[in-house]
Amino acid sequence: MGFPTTAQLAARQGRIRQTLDALSLDALVVTAAANVRYLTNHAGSAGVLALTHDAAHLLVDFRYREAVERLQASPAACPDLRVWDVPASYDEALLACLQTIGATTVGFEAAHVTVARHDWWVQHAHARQPGIAFRPTDRVVEEARVIKDAPEIAALREAARRLDAVAGAAFGAARAGATERQVAAALEAAMRDAGYERLAFDTIVASGPHAALPHYRAGDRILAPGDLVVLDFGGVLDGYCCDLTRTVSIGPPSSPARRLYTAVFDAQQAALAAVRPGVETSAVDAAARQVLEDRGLGAAFGHGTGHGLGLDVHEEPRITRPRADVPSVPLAPGMVFTIEPGAYLAGFGGVRIEDDVLVTDAGHEVLTTVSRELLAL
Amino acid sequence: MGFPTTAQLAARQGRIRQTLDALSLDALVVTAAANVRYLTNHAGSAGVLALTHDAAHLLVDFRYREAVERLQASPAACPDLRVWDVPASYDEALLACLQTIGATTVGFEAAHVTVARHDWWVQHAHARQPGIAFRPTDRVVEEARVIKDAPEIAALREAARRLDAVAGAAFGAARAGATERQVAAALEAAMRDAGYERLAFDTIVASGPHAALPHYRAGDRILAPGDLVVLDFGGVLDGYCCDLTRTVSIGPPSSPARRLYTAVFDAQQAALAAVRPGVETSAVDAAARQVLEDRGLGAAFGHGTGHGLGLDVHEEPRITRPRADVPSVPLAPGMVFTIEPGAYLAGFGGVRIEDDVLVTDAGHEVLTTVSRELLAL
Repeated sequence: MGFPTTAQLAARQGRIRQTLDALSLDALVVTAAANVRYLTNHAGSAGVLALTHDAAHLLVDFRYREAVERLQASPAACPDLRVWDVPASYDEALLACLQTIGATTVGFEAAHVTVARHDWWVQHAHARQPGIAFRPTDRVVEEARVIKDAPEIAALREAARRLDAVAGAAFGAARAGATERQVAAALEAAMRDAGYERLAFDTIVASGPHAALPHYRAGDRILAPGDLVVLDFGGVLDGYCCDLTRTVSIGPPSSPARRLYTAVFDAQQAALAAVRPGVETSAVDAAARQVLEDRGLGAAFGHGTGHGLGLDVHEEPRITRPRADVPSVPLAPGMVFTIEPGAYLAGFGGVRIEDDVLVTDAGHEVLTTVSRELLAL
Repeated sequence: MGFPTTAQLAARQGRIRQTLDALSLDALVVTAAANVRYLTNHAGSAGVLALTHDAAHLLVDFRYREAVERLQASPAACPDLRVWDVPASYDEALLACLQTIGATTVGFEAAHVTVARHDWWVQHAHARQPGIAFRPTDRVVEEARVIKDAPEIAALREAARRLDAVAGAAFGAARAGATERQVAAALEAAMRDAGYERLAFDTIVASGPHAALPHYRAGDRILAPGDLVVLDFGGVLDGYCCDLTRTVSIGPPSSPARRLYTAVFDAQQAALAAVRPGVETSAVDAAARQVLEDRGLGAAFGHGTGHGLGLDVHEEPRITRPRADVPSVPLAPGMVFTIEPGAYLAGFGGVRIEDDVLVTDAGHEVLTTVSRELLAL
C-alpha cells in the first residue's frame, strides 16, 4: 500500500517519454491533477508538471513545499524531480520554467486546458520565447493510466475490500423510520472509520420513488416498509477510488420489487460473465442491456453499464454503447471498472447493483466483496 | 429559502442579455454548472444552456428530465425555458440546437471550455452551419454572480447560521485521545444533521504540526494536550456554500500558541474592520497582512485573506494582494466572501480563523456566528 516507488514512477514516466519522442515534443505540460500525481506522486490539488526527456519539472506553490520535501526524502521520491516555486500565478511560473529549460515545442493536455488559459499562454509566451509552439495532445497520460500497474491494483483492491465494513454499517442504518440523510451520515462515518481519506463522490441514499432518479443524493424522506433503497457510495484510499451500489428492501419486497431486482441482478451477472481480455467494452454493455431488454426494461436502463476507476472515480474505459465520442475498446488485463446496470421506473422506484472488477489474464476478479443478494431490512 | 422565483431568474437573465447585445451575440453557451444553475435553477451536475434574446435553451440528458419537469411545475420555474433532449453527446446536441435556432454568432465561456471541446465544436459545426462563429467571452455570468441578490443572500445567511450547531459538535469531539479522522467524522455527521446537502469541500482537521500544513485534511494522528487544532469545514445549502475555520487548543494553550492565536485574531479583526463599500479587496488583504507583518509573522501567512462564496466555494471576489491575474476591485454591497488570515510555523503548528462576511450598504454583516475566542478543550 501507499505510494509507488521511484522505480515504478520511472517506468510510468518512461512510457510518456516515448510519446514525447513520437510527437517530437520537448516537453509535455501536465495540468490534470490526477495525471500529475500518477507521474510524480505529488498529491496536492495544485501543481503543474513539465515532463521533459531528462527531468520532471514540478511547479508548486508554498502550500505544497513541505509535502514535496517529505516525498523526496521517502522511497516514493519522484525520479529526476526539479521543483519550481510558484510565487503567484502558475501560468507565469510555467512560462518562466519553459523559457529557462529551453523547451520550444510544448505539448499540453487539450482536454484539461481551457481556451482562456491556452490563449493566455500563447499571448504571453511569444514575448519571452518567439519560437515557442504549444501543441494539443490527446489522452497521453490517460492512455497509460487505463492499464493499472502493481501499486495501483493493490490500492484499488484494498479500497474495494474495505467497503465490506461500510456496507455493513449502511445495512444497519437503513431501517423504516430513518431518513435518507441519517443513512448517508452513517455511511460516511463508516467510510471515515474504514480509513478512506475522503469520499469518492457524493453519497446516494435514494428511497422509494427517489430511487427512480439516478442522480438523486439524499434528502429528508423517511424510509418506509416496502421501499427499495439505492445506496451508492465509495471512498478514496491512497488516492484510488472504489464505488459500490446495493439496493435493499425495507421489510419484505413486493413481487414487482423482487422482479425488478432479479432482472438487474441477472443483467449484472451477464455483464460480469463477459469480462475477459479481448472482449469489447460495448459487448459487456450489450450483455447487461440484452437481459433488461428481454424483460421489457430496456427503456428503464438509461445509463451506461460502467466506468473506469482509478485516481479518478470516472475514467477510462467507459462500458457503454459505442458512441462517436466514446469508442468501444477491447478489454485488457489491468483495466479496472464498475459494472452497474440499473432499472428505474418513475413513480415506483429503482434498482442498481454495482461492483468493481479487474480484468486479469485469466478473465476477471471482482474486487468488491459485499453480498449481492436482495436484503430485506 | 429555496430557489429563486421565475421573476428573479428573469432579472438575472436580463442582465446577461444586455451583454449579448453589447457583444452582438445571438446566443451565449453556458457550460459551467454553477452558471447554468444561476440562470435556470437547473441544479443537475450536467446540462448546457444556450441563452438567446428570447429563450433559455436547456440541454439535458434523461437523468434530469424528471427534475426539470418538476422545476417547471413550481414557482421557481425557469422563464422562457425550452428543453432539448440529449440522447448521447452534449456537444452533438448543442450543435444541433444552435443550428435549429439559427444562432450563428455564439459566445462561449472561455474559462470553462477546454481546447479539445472548442476544437471539436469548430470542426463539426461548420459542416452544419458554414457561417457559425464561436466567440470567447470572459466572466459574463461570474460578473453578475459577484453581487448576490435577495434569494442568494438568504441562502448564504442560513447556510452560515447553521454552522453554529456544527461547530458545537466539533468542539465536543476534539479531545485529547481522539484522532483527527474521528473529529472529521463528527463534523460531517453534524453537517448532515444540520441539513446541508453536501460538504462544500473536504473537511480539514489538522492537529499539532499538521496545523502548519495549510491544505492538510485529516489523518490518524491522535490529538494530544498542547496541540493547536485547525478545524476548517463548510456545507452546501440550497446550492450555496459556507466556510468556517476555528483553531482550538487541546488543554491550556502554551504562551507561544496563545501569541500566535492573538496575532491571527487581531489580523482578522483588522481585515473585518476594513470591509465596507468602496474599499479595495487588496486593502482588506493588506489590513490583515500588516498586523501579521508587524508581529514578525509576514512569512508565516502565505495565502490570501479570503475568497468569494456563493454557488462555488471559491469564487469572486478574491481578497488578496493584487496580481496580474487577480486585479484588486472595490467592494460593493451584495458581495460575500471569507476573511481567513492564518499563520503557520513549520514543526510547531498553525492558526487560521475564518468567517463569512456580506458587504452591506452601511458596512458589513458577519454571517457566521460561532465565537472566535480561543477555546481550550
